[in-house]
Amino acid sequence: MLECLVEGEISDRILAADRGLQYGDGLFETMAILHGQPRFWQAHMDRLAAGCERLGLPVTPQAILFREVQTVSAGQQNCVVKIIITRGTSGRGYAPGFPVNTNRIVCSYAWPVDPGNLVETGIRTRICTLRLGLQPALAGLKHLNRLEQVLARAEWNDKAIHEGILLDPEDHVISAISSNIFLVSGDSLLTPRMDRCGVRGVMRAQILKAFKSRCQQRRITLDMLPEADEVFVCNAVRGIFPVTRIDHWEYSIGPVTREVQKWLRDRVSPPVGSN
Amino acid sequence: MLECLVEGEISDRILAADRGLQYGDGLFETMAILHGQPRFWQAHMDRLAAGCERLGLPVTPQAILFREVQTVSAGQQNCVVKIIITRGTSGRGYAPGFPVNTNRIVCSYAWPVDPGNLVETGIRTRICTLRLGLQPALAGLKHLNRLEQVLARAEWNDKAIHEGILLDPEDHVISAISSNIFLVSGDSLLTPRMDRCGVRGVMRAQILKAFKSRCQQRRITLDMLPEADEVFVCNAVRGIFPVTRIDHWEYSIGPVTREVQKWLRDRVSPPVGSN
Repeated sequence: MLECLVEGEISDRILAADRGLQYGDGLFETMAILHGQPRFWQAHMDRLAAGCERLGLPVTPQAILFREVQTVSAGQQNCVVKIIITRGTSGRGYAPGFPVNTNRIVCSYAWPVDPGNLVETGIRTRICTLRLGLQPALAGLKHLNRLEQVLARAEWNDKAIHEGILLDPEDHVISAISSNIFLVSGDSLLTPRMDRCGVRGVMRAQILKAFKSRCQQRRITLDMLPEADEVFVCNAVRGIFPVTRIDHWEYSIGPVTREVQKWLRDRVSPPVGSN
Repeated sequence: MLECLVEGEISDRILAADRGLQYGDGLFETMAILHGQPRFWQAHMDRLAAGCERLGLPVTPQAILFREVQTVSAGQQNCVVKIIITRGTSGRGYAPGFPVNTNRIVCSYAWPVDPGNLVETGIRTRICTLRLGLQPALAGLKHLNRLEQVLARAEWNDKAIHEGILLDPEDHVISAISSNIFLVSGDSLLTPRMDRCGVRGVMRAQILKAFKSRCQQRRITLDMLPEADEVFVCNAVRGIFPVTRIDHWEYSIGPVTREVQKWLRDRVSPPVGSN
């Protein structure tokens, strides 16, 4: 962690009574800061506001968050900023106090290095044993209840495997552990619906918008994976990674993945190296 | 909160980087301290150890926890102590660092008052709209991912309703929001299985042990609720409450509920008032 603000004050600590710790009662956003500016800022803010509405949390004014993101990323050309909004503190028990006073934590992290140049060469993945539970009330949200992802990521240690693919209990493909997934079929882009589980990623939403006429959100069954011409995963911070392997299925890196990567590169200039 | 120890030191704060906040990556226990002694201590420790094993967390030595529970409850005749064990801090990302250094938080709270004498007069409940998602990998555990309970508890404001009943997506009865549930049929006690969702409560386990020959863990369907002779809910801290109402279904407080309450009363003397 580089810098951290808790409720606007420099601090790396929160109250133990915070409902973010007690219940995971809150949301987060993780964004790329490139050339000193947050990428997809408005998309992150829109998702956060939508999440707050669904969880019944008051929305923190964007101007406050923007200022604090600037503060924690000051002096960094490229870095990562994570915003956490919790329902604040309350007594014991699930019922929140009224009025709700949210707590906000804004922290910066070093830009992640990609020593293997995986954006170019692609990543290897595996299908996780853990199945995501179906929970429409929380589906799509980037909330703080992430034990499923923790358990899924703990399934392997092999450093040659870069990501895990998550299925639901009915063997629908949902996402990777910290990224969304797209399948390419001919000229079309398919990505799973996020109405029963999974996170509606900001990069996913940007791709859906940019390639609208060629994109479909649908249920994707496991047997569609080996049939796909190309597969890629995406993440608001790390971008778009071609998938070259899912367990024993192999994929070549195709023109559509390269096209989407080019769209992202042209849209915002790439980071000019870690600092 | 009365007193709080973080890693054995007096503090009401934890690091913002703690995975308990970042992902809800941890477990908790909430126990009654009666006459200065933790009730069902070994049962809480056994459940915590089982949870740690399932989440891949090293087990904190009981002697350390016992000493810290005594410290935070010192001078209190009756109070509540909550222990939280998290996977500690790590960098960004779901993969934990190795070795895992857990973080422990031990806090005491005032003994909850029961001004309505609800243990005697019974509680009114409602069936929640939110359905618990099925997740066998986390079922039974008292983990820190509790957004489902928060959302369910936010469904009503009516102070005359004391608890919410939670169903799974297939309309099986699972539990109340912060307690387990038993149905009485004749002389028999029925309680839902906790293999697909829900929390294996410590009081539930004690009742299952004490009334072993008359207890059944089974799937309980919604239509069994109006057929039940008696219904009660139980919780390690607050004890056993007769249920007099679930939405429009009414129940009288019957002999089996009173028998189980008497068992608990005889087993450990009741608190002699809040302090």
